[in-house]
Amino acid sequence: MLQSLEIELTKTKKQQPPAEQLGFGNYYTDHMFIMNYEDGKGWNTPRIVPYQPIVLDPAAKVFHYGQTIFEGLKAYKTDDGRVLLFRPHKNIQRMNRSNERLSVPELIIDDAIEALKQLLAVDQNWIPTAPGTSLYIRPFIIATQPQLGVAPSTHYQFIIIMSPVGAYYTEGVNPVKIFVESEYVRSVKGGVGEAKTAGNYAAGLKAQEIAKEKGYSQVLWLDGVHRKYIEEVGSMNVFFKINGIVHTPALNGSILDGVTRNSIIQLLNHWNITVEERPITIEELYEANRKGELEEAFGTGTAAVISPIGELNWQGEVLVINEGRTGELSKKLYDTLTGIQMGKIADPFGWMVEATGIRV
Amino acid sequence: MLQSLEIELTKTKKQQPPAEQLGFGNYYTDHMFIMNYEDGKGWNTPRIVPYQPIVLDPAAKVFHYGQTIFEGLKAYKTDDGRVLLFRPHKNIQRMNRSNERLSVPELIIDDAIEALKQLLAVDQNWIPTAPGTSLYIRPFIIATQPQLGVAPSTHYQFIIIMSPVGAYYTEGVNPVKIFVESEYVRSVKGGVGEAKTAGNYAAGLKAQEIAKEKGYSQVLWLDGVHRKYIEEVGSMNVFFKINGIVHTPALNGSILDGVTRNSIIQLLNHWNITVEERPITIEELYEANRKGELEEAFGTGTAAVISPIGELNWQGEVLVINEGRTGELSKKLYDTLTGIQMGKIADPFGWMVEATGIRV
Repeated sequence: MLQSLEIELTKTKKQQPPAEQLGFGNYYTDHMFIMNYEDGKGWNTPRIVPYQPIVLDPAAKVFHYGQTIFEGLKAYKTDDGRVLLFRPHKNIQRMNRSNERLSVPELIIDDAIEALKQLLAVDQNWIPTAPGTSLYIRPFIIATQPQLGVAPSTHYQFIIIMSPVGAYYTEGVNPVKIFVESEYVRSVKGGVGEAKTAGNYAAGLKAQEIAKEKGYSQVLWLDGVHRKYIEEVGSMNVFFKINGIVHTPALNGSILDGVTRNSIIQLLNHWNITVEERPITIEELYEANRKGELEEAFGTGTAAVISPIGELNWQGEVLVINEGRTGELSKKLYDTLTGIQMGKIADPFGWMVEATGIRV
Repeated sequence: MLQSLEIELTKTKKQQPPAEQLGFGNYYTDHMFIMNYEDGKGWNTPRIVPYQPIVLDPAAKVFHYGQTIFEGLKAYKTDDGRVLLFRPHKNIQRMNRSNERLSVPELIIDDAIEALKQLLAVDQNWIPTAPGTSLYIRPFIIATQPQLGVAPSTHYQFIIIMSPVGAYYTEGVNPVKIFVESEYVRSVKGGVGEAKTAGNYAAGLKAQEIAKEKGYSQVLWLDGVHRKYIEEVGSMNVFFKINGIVHTPALNGSILDGVTRNSIIQLLNHWNITVEERPITIEELYEANRKGELEEAFGTGTAAVISPIGELNWQGEVLVINEGRTGELSKKLYDTLTGIQMGKIADPFGWMVEATGIRV
């Protein structure tokens, strides 16, 4: 279906910001991809157009009932000028799982990948190359039917926008302080925590604001049923190195199946470091720390890649990890993963997909 | 601040649909209200404009992180031509509680009420008067800042649209069949279930679709922790008459504090019928039914007002209530509440607010 892709190039190219000014999600490239969906007709009218506002009826369901799904992935330009995408199929496959949970129509995976590649081809001069920078890609779907009954929409738009980004945290890869959340809950089994949908993020803002006021960067979410099992940190998956073994919460239906999480597990297996995916209680972290066995902790996600955790605060009890410094394994994982992503280190896993064969 | 309200009237009035064609949320009046918010500046630029599309940057936070709040209330036109709003302060107060939970700036309540009245004045000829019809009013707030960091937006829009509506259920006030949901969860304590925000509704669609396929109109939600306490039915609060006493789930942090729920409790108290707000298990409903004590069940909400429940299905066990007929009390509550709302029955509670003093 992407054969019918129409491309309308901008007549007024934007000025690109300097690398040190990028931040995260502040600037957008010259073009965007759009495709419509209509019940009975399916996905149709794929097009690349100049970056422009979305025009929706005020009754469009996305504003009222939150039927919206998104993804986040990154593209890199290598020193020899190749454009690389990091595991794009994982993102589009997850998007379809999210779609299924939110009663949003599924995408044809190959079409969505092709759309990513075509848009990248048009705006590849926007991929920044300074250390720590990349082109963040945000595919998303919104329900557009102007109808206020609580029911799945009959119409949708699939849109891809792209943003040249620097580091997600202004702290860089330095360890962050994390507040363990005891009052608010991100999600619960049977809910939508496994889906990458807007409501999960809105639900987490309040706790994050309170943590910020207390001097913490993010919150560590506990499960909503027992309030003791570790789920995620902010909008990242989380890992703990305890006595030489790496532990991460098992996928339980309420946490996100992170692409970076999955890649870190593969990397650790590749290095013959044992990874245990299992339910982890907050008590046992504190217990491991008392025994001197809690060696490192870090969050993983597309935006920050690896975010070392230097301190936890659970109900006033402060736990300092690795003297608040970035751990050796965290550093090695960050360097290796970003090295593979930027095409500087060999990719034994076949993760990187070159955006070639473009028609523009 | 509403003193600076600007009104731009439409030059092309729409044709109004006949009453029997209305349905729910399909048609919108000629005008809408909009007001902007900006950090440091507060709510500003209130205006009534012709009903028109919303134009947003594709990176606007509402599309990605779901910071959006809504309300629903109704206006009626009496036989002598007065325009009545049902308990509008309750809705705007709840909107502010939802705002607080989702890190959205609060509204000035009097300004929001004034906005409702002014918009109603402009479009009062849109209020349908046929039996069972009303003008449904949808105030909502969306986060508009074009920025992809996960943090509260710096910019918002508060919008009011209005839709002439008929009955919410095509079945009318006849009893509906309800599927008791055992797999999916709507919300959990610590989450956002108490807030009227888009994500709660998106989260419920999947279960509703599955129930529909099985021949049920809605689902009855159980709590996410124990999976046994009754929470809500679809997007309504729920009541059970057992052995002469009316029971409804207590406000527990995960269910909506419904305006209709609150009004029903007041009405029942006024009639000297005992109402117990408490945790109710699904088992005890079935037990009460076995003893012949479960007399009536009904959902309450702005859209449907009272929706009698004729049948429950919990893990394959079917429970028929009042032989599948509308109960006497359900009928009396419906007739009384809609009678007060339409100005046909005296309003001993001071619920109805007349939209007078308008400047247009």
